[in-house]
Amino acid sequence: MLDKSTITKATLGRLPQYLDYLKSLPIEKHTEISAAAIARELSLGDVQVRKDLCSVSGAGRPKVGYDTRMLIKSLENALGCEKCTQAVLVGAGKLGRALLEFDEFEKYGVCISAAFDLNEDILKLSSKKILLPMNCFEDYCKKNKIQIGIITVGAGSAQTVCDIMTSCGITAIWNFAACKLNVPEGTILKQENLALSLAHLTNQLCN
Amino acid sequence: MLDKSTITKATLGRLPQYLDYLKSLPIEKHTEISAAAIARELSLGDVQVRKDLCSVSGAGRPKVGYDTRMLIKSLENALGCEKCTQAVLVGAGKLGRALLEFDEFEKYGVCISAAFDLNEDILKLSSKKILLPMNCFEDYCKKNKIQIGIITVGAGSAQTVCDIMTSCGITAIWNFAACKLNVPEGTILKQENLALSLAHLTNQLCN
Repeated sequence: MLDKSTITKATLGRLPQYLDYLKSLPIEKHTEISAAAIARELSLGDVQVRKDLCSVSGAGRPKVGYDTRMLIKSLENALGCEKCTQAVLVGAGKLGRALLEFDEFEKYGVCISAAFDLNEDILKLSSKKILLPMNCFEDYCKKNKIQIGIITVGAGSAQTVCDIMTSCGITAIWNFAACKLNVPEGTILKQENLALSLAHLTNQLCN
Repeated sequence: MLDKSTITKATLGRLPQYLDYLKSLPIEKHTEISAAAIARELSLGDVQVRKDLCSVSGAGRPKVGYDTRMLIKSLENALGCEKCTQAVLVGAGKLGRALLEFDEFEKYGVCISAAFDLNEDILKLSSKKILLPMNCFEDYCKKNKIQIGIITVGAGSAQTVCDIMTSCGITAIWNFAACKLNVPEGTILKQENLALSLAHLTNQLCN
């Protein structure tokens, strides 16, 4: 059984590329494939590809490589393609709705299945996804066993939203609000700081 | 003269916190301040604060620390507060407009001074910032000597936008589109992959 938590972020970032490439091959002509062949085709380092594939599918057979169909399965499994993990989002403003309609998440087996907001005007805006009032939050999370929450409210409400999330069983939080959050022990918190990313890029120009 | 490009992203991320704290002090009672005192007050590590401050303002005086006013100046300089660096954005959809109205950038001395889009309907939407049609892009960038461009269009148009940016003198690009971009040598490219961030958070749950 693959322990996904050991896959590094860098490796994870390359998996969709491997999967796309393998799926593009006429499988009958490529029943087996080596890490070296994949590396060559995608202009990546040999050692890097070998390590990446090893972390999702073990080492290939010497001189042969991987069974292509099995490797596709392993990549899909690592990316969670077979069963999409659901996340919810609180704060359906511009950023929230941008994330909600972003279709890249599905490549990695995650989907934002619903967004919540206190503001009823926002809820009236058309959207391909579910927009719900905040008073449905607890029910929705418990019924759907949601573990992942995304916070795109302002800094002033972020801690309140965070507390509601953890009380509803959410154990991984991705916070876009510009404030530090306190979470219970065992909850995974990822702080996104877009301003810092831009600032760091800017500073690299200043030399 | 401070070489901002040597400041690490982690250090940069803490500078606004130091600056806020120092500015909150009654300066007449705190003409001098030590790294240790700041560390204690902000619950940060002593060594970390010492290193951070050293990278923006040199070492403090032994047993005394820093002249508070000078340290504030140094932090403001490192954060570019005195003179905001202007960036432009192409793609004024939800994500683009979310970034445009995000006020955290200014803390780090960067501002998105204008956003451009081909879609005239988007340009009619109200905004606190300047929304302009794409045919004004070159003129605007050259007149304002813009060096930083943010790409929030779809993957299909990102390379075209990137080429236009570099041809207009932009040398640092922050790309949110889900595609690899080719840039001329010497251009700094930062690829933002929000889907990967969420996927990595999700995988950490899977153990």
